[in-house]
Amino acid sequence: VTTAPERGTVEPLRFEDGALLVLDQRALPAEERWIRCATVEQVADCIRTLAVRGAPAIGLAAAYALALADDREAAAELLRSTRPTAVNLAWALDQCRDAPDVLETARRLHREQHEADRRLAELGAELFGERSRALTHCNAGALATGGYGTACGVLRAAWARGRLAEVWVDETRPLLQGARLTAWELRQAGIPHRVVADSAAGSLMAQGLVDRIVVGADRIAANGDVANKVGTYPLAVLADRHGVPFYVAAPVSTIDPAAPDGAAIPIEERDPGEVVAGGNAFNPAFDVTPAELVTGIVTEAGVLKPPYAESIAKAVAA
Amino acid sequence: VTTAPERGTVEPLRFEDGALLVLDQRALPAEERWIRCATVEQVADCIRTLAVRGAPAIGLAAAYALALADDREAAAELLRSTRPTAVNLAWALDQCRDAPDVLETARRLHREQHEADRRLAELGAELFGERSRALTHCNAGALATGGYGTACGVLRAAWARGRLAEVWVDETRPLLQGARLTAWELRQAGIPHRVVADSAAGSLMAQGLVDRIVVGADRIAANGDVANKVGTYPLAVLADRHGVPFYVAAPVSTIDPAAPDGAAIPIEERDPGEVVAGGNAFNPAFDVTPAELVTGIVTEAGVLKPPYAESIAKAVAA
Repeated sequence: VTTAPERGTVEPLRFEDGALLVLDQRALPAEERWIRCATVEQVADCIRTLAVRGAPAIGLAAAYALALADDREAAAELLRSTRPTAVNLAWALDQCRDAPDVLETARRLHREQHEADRRLAELGAELFGERSRALTHCNAGALATGGYGTACGVLRAAWARGRLAEVWVDETRPLLQGARLTAWELRQAGIPHRVVADSAAGSLMAQGLVDRIVVGADRIAANGDVANKVGTYPLAVLADRHGVPFYVAAPVSTIDPAAPDGAAIPIEERDPGEVVAGGNAFNPAFDVTPAELVTGIVTEAGVLKPPYAESIAKAVAA
Repeated sequence: VTTAPERGTVEPLRFEDGALLVLDQRALPAEERWIRCATVEQVADCIRTLAVRGAPAIGLAAAYALALADDREAAAELLRSTRPTAVNLAWALDQCRDAPDVLETARRLHREQHEADRRLAELGAELFGERSRALTHCNAGALATGGYGTACGVLRAAWARGRLAEVWVDETRPLLQGARLTAWELRQAGIPHRVVADSAAGSLMAQGLVDRIVVGADRIAANGDVANKVGTYPLAVLADRHGVPFYVAAPVSTIDPAAPDGAAIPIEERDPGEVVAGGNAFNPAFDVTPAELVTGIVTEAGVLKPPYAESIAKAVAA
């Protein structure tokens, strides 16, 4: 644990003096604590225990970790095993494993993530009407990407254009990434928001209090099915019933062309103790939203629209 | 605070030695603490702060409280103002206000609640197929009714008949009535169960892991719209999508013939601090499930079926 780097834009990862500094997201917002990782094992631990989380951010953390490895092959295997659902992890490892200069490649991926986030945020903001009330789930912000944020990036860009009135933040049980992390990021960005219990989103929609839903993604199948934090699927079903546009914001690296549909995406089951003391619980970390419920997928390569098999294939090939 | 009465069936209310003993449901399951109420104000406090909760149970608590009152009219007004959504509160006060012997009337309502719960539990159990997996939300158990439980009563009766395999217990944020109270009651009854985050119910249904949903109710409108703990409506929408039967279990006293539909039911908004420290939250305690999503309403007067305007009118008139 070291002292915090300078404040400003939220930045969950920094590579300095031969080590990866990880902002411990388990301690936020109460405390800004940094973990100094000098070994691959330490980074793997940070990913497994959610000190760093969010599909793009764990990809970047793994990329930086390879720069700490003596044996890249073994390191990649270890890192790949930490969390099964986010495809960005495997994608980033594939980018770095044979790179002549791993650290330089990791830094490039990090820069590119920033640029992709900014681009998709601007594209997503164009989908907002005047003064919309948006709802988001979990945290798909700068903390989750190492950049500007995906779903939260869209919200920030919409706010900058005067198109956002307020954000409903699903608290996101069991680990409260919404109440802890998204609310913290929105507060720093000066965006009006209120936290709600995940189960309150239905009554908000029934009362006409939600104009847009924007969420991130951990893996998108070739047909447009989306794996994201558990609770996303119920939101999509409710949005469909109430005619609320439901957008997924994610970089192209979140797309897994090898997964034909959602059934091919492994869903991580986490410790039941995260839900209830004693652990008499079932704790799937993600769910799958079928493509038919997704209004659009906002990527840096454009807003993908149905039929997704075509628009996704085109985005991946570009 | 006094020592606990003898254990056995869960009993949230006892009138003894001129005072109402309230089992403090805020402290469960960690501690079985009893609050001795010798005044109407103390009972009103217990209702307002959820030491006693559940629509039928707060009705009974209010009835017993009238037995402590010097001025019944003023006491009824105070008690009626504690919580707006559950109609059983007003109903029980109406039963007792002009009774020659209030305490005897309260004790009779308590006995009748037991009998109604048992009857509706048996009727509800008949709706279960062989070895069903059921899901419930919040707590509609003995703690919530002062009897055998409504939704949990149905589960207990189904279990006794060998028709229940397991219960999924929605943890029920923000106050965790499912994780704390329903899990505690099911454990005492020896019924296998696992707690899930409220937002996980969608993926359970999508995977075919839920055969029945049974919930309680705080108020049922004349057209069959049901107000119940926030999060009930999303379950009903998901159940509809997945063809899962969705049952509401409640005594006839939960029906409000004066409310033509759900829009006429006042929805309590509770302290945002229940959701998140600092209180930057929105905290509706209930939501409304439209009648069209309700497969049946299990009452002591029979299982009511659509069209509800007719079946409800008949049950109320009987």
